[in-house]
Parts: sequence; structure tokens; C-alpha cells
Amino acid sequence: MIYLDHAAATPVSERVLRAMEPFMTENFFNPSAAYLPAKRVREAYEAAKSCIANFIGAKGDDLIMTSGATEANLLAFTTVSKNGKVLVLETEHASVLENAKKNNYDVVKVDRTGLINLEDLKNKLTDEVELISVSLANNELGTIQPLSEISEIIKEKRLSRLHAGTTTQLLFHSDASQGLALMDMNVSRLGVDMMTLNSAKVCGPKGVGALYVGHGVRINPVVFGGGQERGLRAGTENVAGVIGFATALDAIRGHSTANRKKYATLTKILEAELKKAKIEPIILGNSKHKLANYLSVSFPGLDAERLIFKLEEKEIYVSTGAACSASKGKPSHVLRAIGLNDVEITGSLRFSLGITNDEDSIKEAGKKIVEVVDSEFERIKNA
Amino acid sequence: MIYLDHAAATPVSERVLRAMEPFMTENFFNPSAAYLPAKRVREAYEAAKSCIANFIGAKGDDLIMTSGATEANLLAFTTVSKNGKVLVLETEHASVLENAKKNNYDVVKVDRTGLINLEDLKNKLTDEVELISVSLANNELGTIQPLSEISEIIKEKRLSRLHAGTTTQLLFHSDASQGLALMDMNVSRLGVDMMTLNSAKVCGPKGVGALYVGHGVRINPVVFGGGQERGLRAGTENVAGVIGFATALDAIRGHSTANRKKYATLTKILEAELKKAKIEPIILGNSKHKLANYLSVSFPGLDAERLIFKLEEKEIYVSTGAACSASKGKPSHVLRAIGLNDVEITGSLRFSLGITNDEDSIKEAGKKIVEVVDSEFERIKNA
Repeated sequence: MIYLDHAAATPVSERVLRAMEPFMTENFFNPSAAYLPAKRVREAYEAAKSCIANFIGAKGDDLIMTSGATEANLLAFTTVSKNGKVLVLETEHASVLENAKKNNYDVVKVDRTGLINLEDLKNKLTDEVELISVSLANNELGTIQPLSEISEIIKEKRLSRLHAGTTTQLLFHSDASQGLALMDMNVSRLGVDMMTLNSAKVCGPKGVGALYVGHGVRINPVVFGGGQERGLRAGTENVAGVIGFATALDAIRGHSTANRKKYATLTKILEAELKKAKIEPIILGNSKHKLANYLSVSFPGLDAERLIFKLEEKEIYVSTGAACSASKGKPSHVLRAIGLNDVEITGSLRFSLGITNDEDSIKEAGKKIVEVVDSEFERIKNA
Repeated sequence: MIYLDHAAATPVSERVLRAMEPFMTENFFNPSAAYLPAKRVREAYEAAKSCIANFIGAKGDDLIMTSGATEANLLAFTTVSKNGKVLVLETEHASVLENAKKNNYDVVKVDRTGLINLEDLKNKLTDEVELISVSLANNELGTIQPLSEISEIIKEKRLSRLHAGTTTQLLFHSDASQGLALMDMNVSRLGVDMMTLNSAKVCGPKGVGALYVGHGVRINPVVFGGGQERGLRAGTENVAGVIGFATALDAIRGHSTANRKKYATLTKILEAELKKAKIEPIILGNSKHKLANYLSVSFPGLDAERLIFKLEEKEIYVSTGAACSASKGKPSHVLRAIGLNDVEITGSLRFSLGITNDEDSIKEAGKKIVEVVDSEFERIKNA
């Protein structure tokens, strides 16, 4: 089996599993209980939060742990007032877009590679805008957005509001679900006020995420009850899950440069193989600003759904785009937003590499993909 | 160590752990992905949901999986319209009360044992009431509420509304976080429209819960995005967690009668031991309608917080009440609601028995608790 869909899910490592287990068995206590073994669980939980926070240059108290990235994105949008406006990219994940649509919102243009149009951002950054949400890297294309440049524009706008005596807040949120393992993840350098983290994409358990909330940013709780997470997210803490997430991040800490190199090499190999096909693939996304483990391509004229099934027979697992939208059988809103036509969209595949891949398997995958593409091409030509 | 706080947390069993592991490692796939191994994960996930639903006499599609009971309670309250009224008991868990407080709400009286006053319910069941939320069993006292009697009253009210041509909905929700292992859990017999389930209380993993939603009941989603759980709860499914919950329920299926007997015997032994103390304990809750594994008592004149620390030295772990409120150091709103005075509240302890207890350990615990109670009594007398 060759798995090329790490953007959809990643396997939990043995190390993460071993770290989680004791907090389900002998250290199962409720961290809010008053006796010593429970207090030790509380300490381990807080230490895990600090470890996660440390990965992005923050402190444990800056994080609100959630049931995943989707819930973290929801929390980020609670900062918007009733009549406040939000700006997002049209290419954002559904968990951002759906929240934007609950508000007065506008979309900032992207170019054909999925990169934000900063001039359009400046134009649309009117006085009623309260929140800008731009993902660190697009989940279908892997295109990395220039967060620190965006944050500079936001800072300027804040300054001009200050001079004009406008008190409307202006916050910057980024969904960093994709790219944690491959990027410099310092919230100060990125200039974000809020950032969404996702355990399931970095070989941590599913059902665990976090929202980084910068100092002075006030989010409004959505889930009420026992007052956990300083009253901002109620519910007994998912201790084992959070410890699993922290352990998963610990395993990739300090390896982002090495990982970038490794995956850049592997995606280049894959790209070179794919170019041997009888249909030249269109390489999607931004060649300069792209997550090293992503390769999104289109074989115009072919049906990607058919390719997926043919590849499945050869035990190669790939995706047309986001797993959650793929299951609905709708054409990708991301590929439409970057201006692809229907033929190009129908022929699009996303390869996202990861921990389970090496050079040999990528070469083999490349050859088999070409076989499938070529046989589909012949089938259509002769039809 | 003798653990007497199973109402706060339970250890995940070896069997549950073994069931979860493959869905974090080799079967880690995103259940929304299109290829076969992912579809198998989807099947296992849906089978686990069916298994959980089956436990309460429902179907898998009737469940919305959540990050825990707190989130499930939140979802139940989304059925209430903007001006709709809700009725709850004053003794409900914070995760119900806090949601009630966001609405126009009223509290139904309970007696000194924590049992609902059905006459008061009838009186307060006015035409604007849209939701009644009553927990299956109180989390501090273990008092079991007569859900089917309440549901009869609700049915009558619905009928009278129908005759009067009133279209206001009237729904019945129950938080069944406590008692799953010890009760007949059939939603039809209980007569509930919605029911909250909690994995963490039945030796399943933390961070997993569900809301049963009966046919024709329309909840409003809170977390938006990828359209999971039929669009009612977005976010990549916590596959391993849900499979763990299903396995935990499978382990207790068919054992509720045996468990009731076992824990009734154990709590009787504990009660008999405690009565040997120099201060006669007041037994709290309802002797007839009580979860078999609960024993809540008050030693008036003593400080339960001190007792907990003294017992901790003897490796006996107990609680003053809900773990999440205990950590805030506030007196229990439940004990206040049933009319205990400050001295009685201050002296209150909750013993909740479970899987880790047997007759010998309970006898030993009883003796040690009496030692601690007696020494505290002497200390106070001589002070």
C-alpha cells in the first residue's frame, strides 16, 4: 500500500500511542478532582498544553483546547460582533467559510496559484472589518500564504484606525491545520492574533485541536458548563488526547527544515514521474510558496474519480481534494476559485506526502499512476 | 489505593484500549475519503454508532457524536426558539444549567432527596415551555428521576396543546451521563426525545459523547464545516474514540441487573461501616430511587475538604461532589437546592463506586474513613 493522502489523515505513531495509554488507564483521573493523583493528571495536562504552545512560541494559557480544528475555527469567529465584517479567502476550508457565512463577509481574491491578492485585501479592508481569516496553507493546493505580510497590512490599518479614533477591533486568524510539521510556527513572527492547530494532521490523535488566542483577544465561549479551559471551553478535558498531540509535536520539533528538504525531493521525484504520462499534467498551486509535501495536478480530459478507483486497485490511495468535500461529490470550490475550468477540475488529484512515504515507494507510485493515467487516456481516445 | 470517585472518571479497560488502537494506527484513514480502506473505517465508525444507539434502543442515525456530554447538552438546547422557555431542575449539572440560563428558564422544585416535584412540574409547564431537561440521575446524589412519569405529563400537555391548536413544540431531554451501566436505557420506555450519553463514565475514553435525537426533533448545528454527522456536527470524526465508547458499552450490555445488585451490596457495606463513626452520617439522596453505586453522606460539623486530604494520605480518593465544581471551591448548588444547611453541606462527601472496587476494598475503605472521621471529630471536640 502507498498512501498519498496525509493531508486527510495521518497514522498515530507508536510513541504517541505509548504516551497516551497511561492517561486512559492508571492515570485516568478527572483533572478537576481534588486528590493528589488527579492533581498529577492536571499537571501532566497543563505540561502538555505548554509543550503544544511552546511549538508556536506561546504559553500554555494562550491555548484553548478543542475537539479539533473545526471547533477551533468556530471559536475564532466568536470574536466578531453582531454587525462586524469578516474577510476570508474564497479558497478557505469549509470550517472557515461556513463560519464566515454566518457573518457579514467578503472574500479576498486569490491568483491562479491560490496566493492571496494583497492589493485586493487592502481595498477590502474597510473600517467595519473585525476579523481576517487566512489559512497558513491551502488544504487542497498546499499554497502557503504570506501571513507576516498580511499582518503588516493589518498593523497599518490598526494604526490608521487609532489615529482616526475608531475603536473597532481588527484581528488576524489563521487556520494552520496544514503545514505544522514543515513551517516556522512562531505566532509572533507570523503576526497572528489567533491560530488553529490540528492534532490529526501531525500523527496525533483525531478529535484534538487548539486555538491559540493572543493576549488581549477576547473570544466568546460556545460550550458551557464546568468552567474548564478558564471558562472558555467547558467539558472534562481530553487528557490522553492532548498528551498525544503534545507528543506528536515533540516528535517533529526541530525537524521542519529536514522535513521540508525530504518532501521537496520526494514531490520532485513524483512530479518527474507524472510528466512521463501521455497527458502532460498541469501542476497546480504555487511552485515557490507551497508546502513541500503537496503535489496537486490536473490531467485535463480524465476523470479523477475514476483514477482514484483505478489507483485503489493498485493499493495507491489519493484524493481529489479535501476528504470532507470529496465525500459529497461536489466539484472543489478551491479549484473553481483559482479559475480552473470544469475539465481541469474533473481531472484534478491531490498528492499529499508524509511519514509513510519514502523514495522507493514514491517512484513506484509515480510509475503506477502513469500506467493508470495512460490506460485511461487510451480508453478515452478509443471511445 | 481505593478509588471511590467513579462518577468523576473511570479507567479505560484493556479491551476498550485494544479496540481503539487499530483505528489510530493501521486504520487511521479519514472516514470521508473515497478509497476502500477509508470506506472500511467509515463502516467501522457507523457500526460503532449503531452499537451505541442499540444500547438505548435507537438507531445509529439517531445519534450525533460529540466531544462529550457537555457538548451534547448544548446541542439539546439548540432546539429552543428565541423566546421559548425551558424548565430544568435546580440540581442539574452545570452543563445543563448554564445552557438553561441562556434562555428564558424556570426551575422545577425537588424534595430533600433530590427527587423532582411532579406537581410543581405540572404547574410550571405553561404554554411557552419548549424544552424540559431532567437528568436521568443526579450527579452528586445519584437520585434517579422518574423519566417515564415526567414523559407522561409531557405527553398530556402536548395533547392539550394539540386540542387548543397551539403549535409550540414541547421536547424532553435527559442527561444520562450517570447511570448508563446500571439502568434500563431504552429511550422509548423512558419517553425522552433527546438523551445525552457520556463515554468517560463507563470506562470509555474521555472526549467522546453523543446526543440521541428522536425522529422529528430538529436540533441546530453549533460547529460548522465539513458536513459530518449529517451536517449537524462538523469536524473529522473521532473514530478511535467512538469505537472505544461502543466497546465500553458492549462490555456492560446485559449486566445492568447484576451490576445493580453488586453495587447495592457494596454501598450497603460502606454505609454500615460509616455508621460506626462517632458522628452519625446523614445519608443524602433517595434511598428508593438511587443509583446503586452512589452513597452521598454528610458528617455535620466536619470539613469535607479536610476529610478528602486526610483520606488521600491513606490512598482513598473521594470527592465532595462534581469534580468540575469541586475545583472551584464553591459550595454545591445541588446540596443547597435540596435544603441542606451550611454545616451539612460543608460535611458532605460523595462516594461513587465502580469497576475498581470489591467487597474487601470497600470494607477497608469504610474502616479508614471512620478512622479519619473519628480523629477529625476528636480534633474539633478538643479544639
